[in-house]
Amino acid sequence: MAATKKTTLRKSLTQLGKAVAIPETPDDAKLEAVPNPHPGTDYVVRFTAPEFTCLCPVTGQPDFAHFVIDYVPGKALVESKSFKLYLSSFRNNPAFHEDTTLVIAKKLIEVLKPKYLRIAGYWYPRGGIPIDVFWQTGTLPKNTFLPALEVAPYRGRG
Amino acid sequence: MAATKKTTLRKSLTQLGKAVAIPETPDDAKLEAVPNPHPGTDYVVRFTAPEFTCLCPVTGQPDFAHFVIDYVPGKALVESKSFKLYLSSFRNNPAFHEDTTLVIAKKLIEVLKPKYLRIAGYWYPRGGIPIDVFWQTGTLPKNTFLPALEVAPYRGRG
Amino acid sequence: MAATKKTTLRKSLTQLGKAVAIPETPDDAKLEAVPNPHPGTDYVVRFTAPEFTCLCPVTGQPDFAHFVIDYVPGKALVESKSFKLYLSSFRNNPAFHEDTTLVIAKKLIEVLKPKYLRIAGYWYPRGGIPIDVFWQTGTLPKNTFLPALEVAPYRGRG
Amino acid sequence: MAATKKTTLRKSLTQLGKAVAIPETPDDAKLEAVPNPHPGTDYVVRFTAPEFTCLCPVTGQPDFAHFVIDYVPGKALVESKSFKLYLSSFRNNPAFHEDTTLVIAKKLIEVLKPKYLRIAGYWYPRGGIPIDVFWQTGTLPKNTFLPALEVAPYRGRG
Amino acid sequence: MAATKKTTLRKSLTQLGKAVAIPETPDDAKLEAVPNPHPGTDYVVRFTAPEFTCLCPVTGQPDFAHFVIDYVPGKALVESKSFKLYLSSFRNNPAFHEDTTLVIAKKLIEVLKPKYLRIAGYWYPRGGIPIDVFWQTGTLPKNTFLPALEVAPYRGRG
Amino acid sequence: MAATKKTTLRKSLTQLGKAVAIPETPDDAKLEAVPNPHPGTDYVVRFTAPEFTCLCPVTGQPDFAHFVIDYVPGKALVESKSFKLYLSSFRNNPAFHEDTTLVIAKKLIEVLKPKYLRIAGYWYPRGGIPIDVFWQTGTLPKNTFLPALEVAPYRGRG
Amino acid sequence: MAATKKTTLRKSLTQLGKAVAIPETPDDAKLEAVPNPHPGTDYVVRFTAPEFTCLCPVTGQPDFAHFVIDYVPGKALVESKSFKLYLSSFRNNPAFHEDTTLVIAKKLIEVLKPKYLRIAGYWYPRGGIPIDVFWQTGTLPKNTFLPALEVAPYRGRG
Amino acid sequence: MAATKKTTLRKSLTQLGKAVAIPETPDDAKLEAVPNPHPGTDYVVRFTAPEFTCLCPVTGQPDFAHFVIDYVPGKALVESKSFKLYLSSFRNNPAFHEDTTLVIAKKLIEVLKPKYLRIAGYWYPRGGIPIDVFWQTGTLPKNTFLPALEVAPYRGRG
Amino acid sequence: MAATKKTTLRKSLTQLGKAVAIPETPDDAKLEAVPNPHPGTDYVVRFTAPEFTCLCPVTGQPDFAHFVIDYVPGKALVESKSFKLYLSSFRNNPAFHEDTTLVIAKKLIEVLKPKYLRIAGYWYPRGGIPIDVFWQTGTLPKNTFLPALEVAPYRGRG
Amino acid sequence: MAATKKTTLRKSLTQLGKAVAIPETPDDAKLEAVPNPHPGTDYVVRFTAPEFTCLCPVTGQPDFAHFVIDYVPGKALVESKSFKLYLSSFRNNPAFHEDTTLVIAKKLIEVLKPKYLRIAGYWYPRGGIPIDVFWQTGTLPKNTFLPALEVAPYRGRG
Ligand SMILES: [Ca+2]
Ligand SMILES: [Ca+2]
Ligand SMILES: [Ca+2]
Ligand SMILES: [Ca+2]
Ligand SMILES: [Ca+2]
Ligand SMILES: [Ca+2]
Ligand SMILES: [Ca+2]
Ligand SMILES: [Ca+2]
Ligand SMILES: [Ca+2]
Ligand SMILES: [Ca+2]
Ligand SMILES: [Ca+2]
Ligand SMILES: [Ca+2]
Ligand SMILES: [Ca+2]
Ligand SMILES: [Ca+2]
Ligand SMILES: [Ca+2]
Ligand SMILES: [Ca+2]
Repeated sequence: MAATKKTTLRKSLTQLGKAVAIPETPDDAKLEAVPNPHPGTDYVVRFTAPEFTCLCPVTGQPDFAHFVIDYVPGKALVESKSFKLYLSSFRNNPAFHEDTTLVIAKKLIEVLKPKYLRIAGYWYPRGGIPIDVFWQTGTLPKNTFLPALEVAPYRGRG
Repeated sequence: MAATKKTTLRKSLTQLGKAVAIPETPDDAKLEAVPNPHPGTDYVVRFTAPEFTCLCPVTGQPDFAHFVIDYVPGKALVESKSFKLYLSSFRNNPAFHEDTTLVIAKKLIEVLKPKYLRIAGYWYPRGGIPIDVFWQTGTLPKNTFLPALEVAPYRGRG
Repeated sequence: MAATKKTTLRKSLTQLGKAVAIPETPDDAKLEAVPNPHPGTDYVVRFTAPEFTCLCPVTGQPDFAHFVIDYVPGKALVESKSFKLYLSSFRNNPAFHEDTTLVIAKKLIEVLKPKYLRIAGYWYPRGGIPIDVFWQTGTLPKNTFLPALEVAPYRGRG
Repeated sequence: MAATKKTTLRKSLTQLGKAVAIPETPDDAKLEAVPNPHPGTDYVVRFTAPEFTCLCPVTGQPDFAHFVIDYVPGKALVESKSFKLYLSSFRNNPAFHEDTTLVIAKKLIEVLKPKYLRIAGYWYPRGGIPIDVFWQTGTLPKNTFLPALEVAPYRGRG
Repeated sequence: MAATKKTTLRKSLTQLGKAVAIPETPDDAKLEAVPNPHPGTDYVVRFTAPEFTCLCPVTGQPDFAHFVIDYVPGKALVESKSFKLYLSSFRNNPAFHEDTTLVIAKKLIEVLKPKYLRIAGYWYPRGGIPIDVFWQTGTLPKNTFLPALEVAPYRGRG
Repeated sequence: MAATKKTTLRKSLTQLGKAVAIPETPDDAKLEAVPNPHPGTDYVVRFTAPEFTCLCPVTGQPDFAHFVIDYVPGKALVESKSFKLYLSSFRNNPAFHEDTTLVIAKKLIEVLKPKYLRIAGYWYPRGGIPIDVFWQTGTLPKNTFLPALEVAPYRGRG
Repeated sequence: MAATKKTTLRKSLTQLGKAVAIPETPDDAKLEAVPNPHPGTDYVVRFTAPEFTCLCPVTGQPDFAHFVIDYVPGKALVESKSFKLYLSSFRNNPAFHEDTTLVIAKKLIEVLKPKYLRIAGYWYPRGGIPIDVFWQTGTLPKNTFLPALEVAPYRGRG
Repeated sequence: MAATKKTTLRKSLTQLGKAVAIPETPDDAKLEAVPNPHPGTDYVVRFTAPEFTCLCPVTGQPDFAHFVIDYVPGKALVESKSFKLYLSSFRNNPAFHEDTTLVIAKKLIEVLKPKYLRIAGYWYPRGGIPIDVFWQTGTLPKNTFLPALEVAPYRGRG
Repeated sequence: MAATKKTTLRKSLTQLGKAVAIPETPDDAKLEAVPNPHPGTDYVVRFTAPEFTCLCPVTGQPDFAHFVIDYVPGKALVESKSFKLYLSSFRNNPAFHEDTTLVIAKKLIEVLKPKYLRIAGYWYPRGGIPIDVFWQTGTLPKNTFLPALEVAPYRGRG
Repeated sequence: MAATKKTTLRKSLTQLGKAVAIPETPDDAKLEAVPNPHPGTDYVVRFTAPEFTCLCPVTGQPDFAHFVIDYVPGKALVESKSFKLYLSSFRNNPAFHEDTTLVIAKKLIEVLKPKYLRIAGYWYPRGGIPIDVFWQTGTLPKNTFLPALEVAPYRGRG
């Protein structure tokens, strides 16, 4: 990393390298950023987070989802551990599929101010019908390389 | 969900949380909507419904299909349980492949008035030849994220 | 077919080549047999029936399943069209997963008196948990060739 | 089907519901059309026909192919049974890969006058080298939903 | 279901058809049984439960697993909803991978007294290394049909 | 090939290297053998024949199948070209699925007198239900290496 | 083939239907063309050639490749057998990966003068790193149907 | 974990929860054990370790491998973090494929004294030919559930 | 290779055909170029490098990645062996995922001055969340053939 | 490798680390062995060799095959480079599928005197029908771990 010192980077973080409990709500979670080592370059970072769970606001039963997030960083990258903790903060909170997917994306946008961000939320089936939610901010910066997701579609049995 | 209260939402629904019999015909089914929690955001909701059956209008024998529906909500989201009941209302009704696929899409459009909707109907083979039906309303809103379907194509044997 | 004449075979059947309505219940269905053209040979016939539906006895909602049936015929083969009609006779009848799978198998045994039969029922998920039911009659006749099913297991999302 | 009566539809057909022998040549086959139930809507119908065979004009040996055909219907849909019979009419006729693929497409165009049609012919390997043939008529009507084929490519062994 | 009446069956259950909160601990959960409709027949019931989560006893962070359970019922079948609630009772409890997998299996054995039971627990990777845990009770009853799991193995990237 | 001269081998064959028309019936076909170059060794030869077609004895319509044949040669190997011609001889002949699969196997046994032979016939679906037929002669010679078929099972749509 | 007679076509060819030895070098090979039966139609022909080998110019060791070639024919189609012989002419000749892939494409262009041609060369790994080479001539004719290749990417182990 | 206290367990470990450098050689690594919470039960624990690298003893160049290890614990389970460190200790050490695979297995046996252990080492190709190494200790304890590995085999290209 | 002599080519290289130790750091590595045999042709060369490892700058533990690099050569091609050595030079050096991916790409650009280059880095999961990094230089030269990557996405378990 | 010194090992080899031309015939090739570092342990070594080619003895045209070889070493392991050279020695020699597969296996047995060896030869299709050849020596030593091959079966098109 040409311009960022490791020590400097870690000093500004509050959770990395410490034992941190699961935040009780998304509001309690602290999503943190680190400096983008290549701020003048439009590249894509993709996170795949197959471990997500929250509660159904109607029935109180657990819901599960698999997320894929692509973003073009501006000045900041998301700090991985704080992102993991943010996701886990939904664990015991009620959250609708469509809403939660967008809320996660918008939180990342608020913290990172990326040049572009998109999210794909693949939710486990309820009533035999799975729901996917897809959103992106405006336009991908020109000439940015963003491959297709290629996530396997849901199928029934057999 | 920032602006919608859970209690309000559920009061307007007539089927959620109740035992509801399969509607006898699509006309008897009540497809219901709930408010879109992010009405100012162009995002996609995808339903995958691998459990669909109706009757062949020519032979009276059962037909089966796997549907994938993508839409960009306007003011409303489809209420999942009512959608499931709507699909099951075709169960004992005659319905041609091409027609049924479009009828389902147009019904959703009538109820949801989405900014965009597309449907893919993958019908089980008859006479060794499966039929797929694909339709979308006009144009996808600019800069909307809509991944490819990636549904496995039909193959014969071996 | 060395020993069986086509005309004789068809005369004994009551449904082949005729328009036959879906039987209202499994009891109304007529599962028919045709002579085994190689009665002295222990071979396996496998049916794959991905188009099955019945009703949930608790909720009245539709259930779906994908069946694979392997049998070693004795004197009789199942007549395909009558088998298809038999499966469709469950369409508007309540039926538990475990029970239905075994009932179908036992009906085939009653009609065909096969040397061996096994059934695999892959049911679509309810409450996020799909159920499979597997059963076979006693022992496969010695030296019979019966390949593994290789049916794709259920997975969640992502 | 809003505007078309089932009885009317069937009266105009000459082969549906009757035992029809395989036509001896493609010229003898009668490819038939039925009215498009949604003539004002630009949608796609996809046929997958993995059961095709003809003879090699050079060696007289059998050739096999797997076809996928997508079309945007104008006033007419192809009648499925007559299409199946048309395909089977090539059975004992000599036909080059490239030529046959285009001839089938052009015949459908002649009978259906679709707004758009494309064909993909996947031929089984000869001399270790399989040939695929792809063709489409002019331009897909604007804003029509036509998913990628996703047919598995040929591979050798291992 | 030959010998069991639907009403009788449901009367003995305490959770089916009611809104039941997630039990706070596995001890609080009530795993319930229903009569086996075919008690004289050795068949297999397979549950696939891709939605499981608990907490890591060392770090307090969430863990996830995908379970496949096969059993040969004796007098009882597990009641699906109570099983789902039992699994969700681990949600906020510390649990080691190996231990939890066996504890779930042994609980099912205690309640169902099956003729045979096996469990496969596929845990999500920690430190880049996923752990699977496999266990079965003694011997599968002779001549029972139990297909291979065919669950996709873990792989890294690329 | 240690013990067999190429010239000798080809002299005894009547079809290799010549243009041979498709035999009109299986009886007209001449299935030929060549000497086994390793007669003292129990090994397996597997043929995969995805190009097979015959006619349905009931409807006269074309049927298609994909065959996999494994055998342990005794004194003879099947000559590939004559085998291909034999398969093509069914082209315009009526043939039931179960019967045809066994007839092909028994013809090979008659000509080759192998130490072991098994056949798997994967037939294309009719009425939505594909049929597979599996047969083997007695026992595989001890310590013979015969891998599983791993042929993909039939699935519906989606 | 509407306008081309089979006899005329074969007279102009020098290798079809004859035993032809592997040409010693690509220069010795005779790549031949046959008339395009649909010269007024812009369609694509795809060859998949998984059987290619040459020698490494640096080490003299064998190299292997899998080629996929798509072209839009002008007045000519490539004659399959001569193409196969052309590919086999590289067998004992030194050839770099990038160079060979382009040389094959340019030779086809010279002989066929196609409206468009593209080649994909998938080379087997050396030093653990496989190389793919992709090239196309200028622009695909407008409105030509050319599906994606969908060839599986290389992966390591596991 | 019925009989083992978390605090006791962690006290005996020297590396868990601490920053530990990669051991310089396998001899420097400390592979640690924790008590088996179900010592009276014969179950299988599977580790999948796709992140392994060492050096080729002949060329000094890096080698890579993907390991799958199954064992039936006796009194001890391997402690995951120490196992990860043990694997990373090979990083800058020369090691032959066959030897290394067995050395890892034998080290685990020495430390864990398992009732059974097997290892599968899938090494990345060298010279175009990948090597797999498979070994197990004596016999699997009777009635132990050990699924097949189902790891994808190596293939070339295309 | 029309214009480049093999001897000339090898003389300018310093590492090919010699035993070269792993460079201690990326700075010590010598990435070398060879002349592009088709400098007037815009084609793509794809490297797939599934064998990459470096150290985590925060924990010192090993990280692993799978890279796919596509470039359109200008006057130079990368010399394969020097590229392999360059990749291995990261082995014992600390490197962040995002940074390393871009550093490799920028080094290739510096040495090769390609008309276009893109890189996809698929990193193994940390904390259950894998990261992919994608970057390309400006615009792909017009009419260049560059297929999609089709790399399998990460998934959890099951 | 506990008991074998690297220097000793390499001294006895005649081809490793030298430029060696492709042997002109299998008789000219020198298949070499190295000491088994674990001679008292019954383990399996699997080679996958997807790069094999020879000539068809009847037509002189190239044939291709993908081999998988498993063996339990006695005192010796095969030396990889000499094995690669041995395989390449078939390049310009006529060889029948069945014969070649066994000849390779028997040569390895002669040189290595393994406790067990098996070979699977997957040959590319000729006349649309691929041939696989499978052979093993006597019995696998008791309690040896030998996973299934899991090689994808041949399929036609579509
Ligand atoms: Ca469900
Ligand atoms: Ca895809
Ligand atoms: Ca794709
Ligand atoms: Ca796609
Ligand atoms: Ca399998
Ligand atoms: Ca299997
Ligand atoms: Ca695809
Ligand atoms: Ca059918
Ligand atoms: Ca298998
Ligand atoms: Ca694709
Ligand atoms: Ca290699
Ligand atoms: Ca398997
Ligand atoms: Ca991890
Ligand atoms: Ca793909
Ligand atoms: Ca062929
Ligand atoms: Ca398998």
